[in-house]
Amino acid sequence: MPDTESTSHIPVSVDEIVDALRSQSPDRILAISKQAHPGDVEMAFERFDEVAREEVLDKLPAEVLSEWADYLSPGDVEHRLNSLPKGEQREVLESLSDDELVDLLQEIEEEDRPQYIELLPEEKRIVSEDLMRFPEETAGGRMTMAMATVRQNLTVKEALDELRCIQNEAELLSRIFVVDENRKLLGKLRLRDLAFNTWDTPITELMDGDQTCVSVLADQEEAAQMIARYDLVALPVVDENDQLVGVITHDDALEIMEEESTEDMEKISGIGGDRGDLAYLQTSVLSHIKRRFGWVLVLAFLALISGWVLLKYEEVLKAYFTLALYFPMIVAAGGNTGSQAATMVIRAMSLGELGSKEFGRVLWKELRVGILLGAMLGLCVALQVEFLLPDQFMPEGINSLRIVGIVGFALTAQVMTSTLIGALLPQLAKMGRLDPAVVASPAITTMVDVSGAIIYLGLAKVMLGVF
Amino acid sequence: MPDTESTSHIPVSVDEIVDALRSQSPDRILAISKQAHPGDVEMAFERFDEVAREEVLDKLPAEVLSEWADYLSPGDVEHRLNSLPKGEQREVLESLSDDELVDLLQEIEEEDRPQYIELLPEEKRIVSEDLMRFPEETAGGRMTMAMATVRQNLTVKEALDELRCIQNEAELLSRIFVVDENRKLLGKLRLRDLAFNTWDTPITELMDGDQTCVSVLADQEEAAQMIARYDLVALPVVDENDQLVGVITHDDALEIMEEESTEDMEKISGIGGDRGDLAYLQTSVLSHIKRRFGWVLVLAFLALISGWVLLKYEEVLKAYFTLALYFPMIVAAGGNTGSQAATMVIRAMSLGELGSKEFGRVLWKELRVGILLGAMLGLCVALQVEFLLPDQFMPEGINSLRIVGIVGFALTAQVMTSTLIGALLPQLAKMGRLDPAVVASPAITTMVDVSGAIIYLGLAKVMLGVF
Repeated sequence: MPDTESTSHIPVSVDEIVDALRSQSPDRILAISKQAHPGDVEMAFERFDEVAREEVLDKLPAEVLSEWADYLSPGDVEHRLNSLPKGEQREVLESLSDDELVDLLQEIEEEDRPQYIELLPEEKRIVSEDLMRFPEETAGGRMTMAMATVRQNLTVKEALDELRCIQNEAELLSRIFVVDENRKLLGKLRLRDLAFNTWDTPITELMDGDQTCVSVLADQEEAAQMIARYDLVALPVVDENDQLVGVITHDDALEIMEEESTEDMEKISGIGGDRGDLAYLQTSVLSHIKRRFGWVLVLAFLALISGWVLLKYEEVLKAYFTLALYFPMIVAAGGNTGSQAATMVIRAMSLGELGSKEFGRVLWKELRVGILLGAMLGLCVALQVEFLLPDQFMPEGINSLRIVGIVGFALTAQVMTSTLIGALLPQLAKMGRLDPAVVASPAITTMVDVSGAIIYLGLAKVMLGVF
Repeated sequence: MPDTESTSHIPVSVDEIVDALRSQSPDRILAISKQAHPGDVEMAFERFDEVAREEVLDKLPAEVLSEWADYLSPGDVEHRLNSLPKGEQREVLESLSDDELVDLLQEIEEEDRPQYIELLPEEKRIVSEDLMRFPEETAGGRMTMAMATVRQNLTVKEALDELRCIQNEAELLSRIFVVDENRKLLGKLRLRDLAFNTWDTPITELMDGDQTCVSVLADQEEAAQMIARYDLVALPVVDENDQLVGVITHDDALEIMEEESTEDMEKISGIGGDRGDLAYLQTSVLSHIKRRFGWVLVLAFLALISGWVLLKYEEVLKAYFTLALYFPMIVAAGGNTGSQAATMVIRAMSLGELGSKEFGRVLWKELRVGILLGAMLGLCVALQVEFLLPDQFMPEGINSLRIVGIVGFALTAQVMTSTLIGALLPQLAKMGRLDPAVVASPAITTMVDVSGAIIYLGLAKVMLGVF
């Protein structure tokens, strides 16, 4: 994790922006807005909790809001918008990019939406109503319609003339999409192809016929993965009639990947629900609890199964209490190796490394990893039991090798079982069309705790002959 | 996790590429290389293990290798290169982009490197020797030098003429960097600014004076975060003399973010070492074990501390064996809440949400979350003990409320402690300039296991009066 301010050349630091915002002085905020990059403003706002943020927002001049609106959370923009006069509301709304505008409108209560929509100029109104049809997490919900398209029957000169007219609206002019009369995607051009060729060249001669595109209803993660895989600046989005309706740009892909990675990590740690647009410090204590209590409660009660297993083996434990010394180790080793395997598999699935036919290969690999890891660990600990365990811990009247054997074998079996469970559950979840990260982690925790208790104490019961 | 093939328009599926590769027929491979996107080829290669991959590579025609080289792992390219004649080696090397070429040269044994370097044309040789000075994980190690730069004293026409000459080499022409006579960065231009303005306009009039840049020695993660934060297509990289030496492009940023997220997830799960360029299925069983065994072994022995705590409380446990029923629950609740808190904090740090001054605020937030989570969970489980626990489990001669109290209070204290530990350790690690994800996770696991045992059994000992 780098120290962000150290080596980069940035006009105003995030800390300076935080100070200016904290001062709540409209003049200071206006002054800093002339220098600060909105990306840093976004980071500065992430340092404020809800109450402080609203106080700052209430002092934000409308012209500053217009400049920052694309980078603030829709909820924050809405909060400030509510208290502005109509004219300034319009100014802010017009400053928003397509996708941020749609996010904002979706945030606003349905009955208040029309009053904002009617402030929009005709064209933006149509666009936003179009875009609002798509759920937030789809390619359609994430795309912008402000891209450059040209018809295939143009020459370089004609294409340049058309682009000149839209150069201020288009978010991205370095990729120009070529369509036919039905808006069907035919290929793409780079602006350099137009800039450096003679004016009468037909664009079809310069066009790259790559028709890679994504459907409006595809998951935004799929779109981001395509942008990453094909190194795209912009990915065309097509509707059900194969008509080009928008593009998702490289910066959206970065944002989507960040969100999805965060989501995956949170799910693996048993944090539920949607993070939303809010950063860690922006989220209230109650929201944090809401997202965490569910799994904590479920897992706590599931842990009763392990407790019940312990009770079942009361005789063994009471007779040879030394066994308790290794109990936490055996359970923990299962948890550790199970979560290693699960993380490996879940991440490989997220990165698209595993096709649908790879189920068996993953299990076979993890089976071998599990056996070897287990055997190595079992051996190390067995040696510790035999040579390093102080005599006072060794139960009397028993050959120490029996304890060595129980601990060593139980560890081996537990690590092997846990590794397999860790590799198996995410894949089963995916086959059942469930989210591997959500399902697998808590289930693995519980299962390996129980398996550890049964393997260890069961083995001890048999080997020590306590019935 | 989307089903990649479902909704996107791709000429050849990854499965078809896998089949063609598996056939090992040079003709089929050549045929598919004309249609397949190299990004899909990369995914196809991820499905092969080492042995199978080398067999396929040995059959790969040189012209196909040239086309795919940027997308294959440097190790794979080197493997194939070794068995090619000099002429074809040169062809492949020339086809590589700057940064992939440098990765490849770094992969090759130092004594073999000169023979490859001397195959390069003069210009590429200088560039690659320049780039090899920078460690792989720095901005310098990741940048390309093939960017478009122009001097500030040009007109639009002059700038266009210069760019026309380099249009085939430059990786990216949509951002053009303006420098002074010392190659110091002054600002940037978009190609559209040149394409749509009159030829005699001085470019300084059109230039955006944004001088955001990153140092060659900055961590690659810092560069990726800047690209994400400022929505950049390309981030300029400057050397110690503030001279512009290269750029990092948006597609590099996506790749870096993917790598870093994977690394973080793996570290949190106690997987050590570097993933390298290899995908899950490409990594051999032994490499998997190498990366996992370290922490598994360390954590196993650390778990002995919890076992030792159990032994210390032998009297209490033997006297009231029912306590064992709730032991796994209390330990697990600590692990779960501790890892939730740690994940939240580690991810917020990775995303740059937490400044250096936020230490206290994070602790204060997690303290409140921990107390509330603990109290809620303690209450739920206390009610279960009182009303749902079958009588057979309740030790005789004790008021059930004592057990209720012990379990409820221990859970509350354990969850609060674990949440605090989870929030504290990553921040301490960062202050000590250690990697939060590596240090925090295993330490948290061990600490909460021990704290759970001490809190629960210690409380029981006091409340039940066993001395």
